Amino acid sequence: MRGVVMHAPGDVRVERREDPQIIEPTDAIIRLSASCICGSDLWPYRGVEKLDGPSPMGHEYVGVVEQVGDQVKNVKVGDFVVGSFVISDNTCEICQAGFQSKCVHAEFVAATIGTQAEKARIPHADGTLVATPGQPDPELIPSLLAASDVLGTGWFAAVAAEAGPGKTVAVVGDGAVGLMAILAAKQLGAERIIAMSRHADRQALARFYGATDIVEERGDDGVAKIKELTGGLGAHSVVEAVGTQEAFMQAVGATRGGGHLGYVGVNYGVTIPGFDLFLAGIHTLGGPAPVRRFLPDLIQLIWDRKIDPGKVFDLELPLDQAAEGYQAMHERRATKVLFTV
Amino acid sequence: MRGVVMHAPGDVRVERREDPQIIEPTDAIIRLSASCICGSDLWPYRGVEKLDGPSPMGHEYVGVVEQVGDQVKNVKVGDFVVGSFVISDNTCEICQAGFQSKCVHAEFVAATIGTQAEKARIPHADGTLVATPGQPDPELIPSLLAASDVLGTGWFAAVAAEAGPGKTVAVVGDGAVGLMAILAAKQLGAERIIAMSRHADRQALARFYGATDIVEERGDDGVAKIKELTGGLGAHSVVEAVGTQEAFMQAVGATRGGGHLGYVGVNYGVTIPGFDLFLAGIHTLGGPAPVRRFLPDLIQLIWDRKIDPGKVFDLELPLDQAAEGYQAMHERRATKVLFTV
Repeated sequence: MRGVVMHAPGDVRVERREDPQIIEPTDAIIRLSASCICGSDLWPYRGVEKLDGPSPMGHEYVGVVEQVGDQVKNVKVGDFVVGSFVISDNTCEICQAGFQSKCVHAEFVAATIGTQAEKARIPHADGTLVATPGQPDPELIPSLLAASDVLGTGWFAAVAAEAGPGKTVAVVGDGAVGLMAILAAKQLGAERIIAMSRHADRQALARFYGATDIVEERGDDGVAKIKELTGGLGAHSVVEAVGTQEAFMQAVGATRGGGHLGYVGVNYGVTIPGFDLFLAGIHTLGGPAPVRRFLPDLIQLIWDRKIDPGKVFDLELPLDQAAEGYQAMHERRATKVLFTV
Repeated sequence: MRGVVMHAPGDVRVERREDPQIIEPTDAIIRLSASCICGSDLWPYRGVEKLDGPSPMGHEYVGVVEQVGDQVKNVKVGDFVVGSFVISDNTCEICQAGFQSKCVHAEFVAATIGTQAEKARIPHADGTLVATPGQPDPELIPSLLAASDVLGTGWFAAVAAEAGPGKTVAVVGDGAVGLMAILAAKQLGAERIIAMSRHADRQALARFYGATDIVEERGDDGVAKIKELTGGLGAHSVVEAVGTQEAFMQAVGATRGGGHLGYVGVNYGVTIPGFDLFLAGIHTLGGPAPVRRFLPDLIQLIWDRKIDPGKVFDLELPLDQAAEGYQAMHERRATKVLFTV
């Protein structure tokens, strides 16, 4: 099969990779319908995260089940499925508590599988994949693909920040995850949603997804502006969807005492001054999102056309043009790139 | 009046200080019945926290109301009262959400008032002080004093860690606050309470307050031991009651994915590696405790002799011997020192 392999920063190639095989009786093989590039794929592309030799890329995926192991019961050959970017058994104590990304069998799809490809082996298929109610209309595929990570992650961030009725939510970061957090905050009933963004095109998308206010200031000025908009108190709920030092501390500062910060930006190299966090007196919850918890509901919302997360994809390319897709996201010519397979 | 003043690290004196006066109509003047030394008072005593000139000391207090401003309604002259170590109006939006330590009128008693003294002016008396049901038996005074900070803080830590029925709670730190967190976890119905302690006397007190297990290991070894005791998962609820780098990261490591960390150790100089916290996937809540939220319930529990937090005081001295009290806590000859006034 063909699949994307990163050889070095900036060096992405579509190559022949071995066809995946069933190894464990809990595995499934899926033929991918679409895949995409995640913001976190840019870390190795930019040389921020070190590569250990050539790496298969991709961890977001939708597709059709082609083969299942003997013990797989919840999905069958021919099902159209959406999977989380973290493998989970969905039965252990941690999964049952809703934290499937910390499952005792957790494994990052990014680390070994690589779904920017024609096919993929998905371990713990019953606990990782969710079948859609039927074969989807092609127009729904981008949205279903978004559920696999970017929507699921933004949704988790909004839930972690306890966005809900009567709440003012501030979202730091106007990338795809930040935009999905806005969509989620709106669905969760937030009263006011402040997008922190300085790009006109993303501001427009933020408003489309439910932002009621835009703040262009960053850092201490951004915090001051959020305070000004919230009677001096700060937002009830803040989402951090960037992963830099400045963004993280901006998010801490924007949260009111006793408020909730949900952080999902992959934060390599960020160091949090403990005493600043202590004095802030806030709840925090973050990390790789337990997307599997939300998948059944998110699929239904998409199926019923109540949400349209697929709009975050602003560039669609055939898999063979993967290198151009990475370049476009790296140069910020695209917010998020979808690959047709 | 007499009051404790710290002039420099290691230099604590009992001096004449001016008698406090009503300044605002929301003030009360109380005559202190007892006061004590907090672990955080040792920071400037040890030179870790810088002093800006001679500083009145003390922020934990119980006593009798001697005078009230015109607008004070909830406490009256003659009432025996317990107050929080943070001033709060108890009416603002933040207070109403239960985060009185982040009140819009918040002020640290430690910073300006100094309750290791004969009298103190308490601003926002209605929102800060709680009257006991009557004049307490002398034997209850240590416990009521504990409610002012050390019990209230340990209680908050246990609540922040979501200690409760069915939960395994690990407590990092066997100082007075850690011991009070154990008491709180027990009252909140925790199934299993693991005290991380290597001092025999404190282990005994930990067991008295409800610890079911003792772990002597620290750092990575301590984390490994907690995992071993919890089927490899980590504790549902972890309390950090020390404030050092090692203790904080030990607490992060001991918390299961999706679990809750409550941190109340004053953590000057701690830097939290953001990516480690991200990968841990845990809830955190910490900071100066909103003691005022818990005071009415804690006073009632003490009044009804259902809890005995006063046992954390293992040295009682007259105020005039304050210097000896500081020395004893600094040298760890005492866990917590009570001053009779």
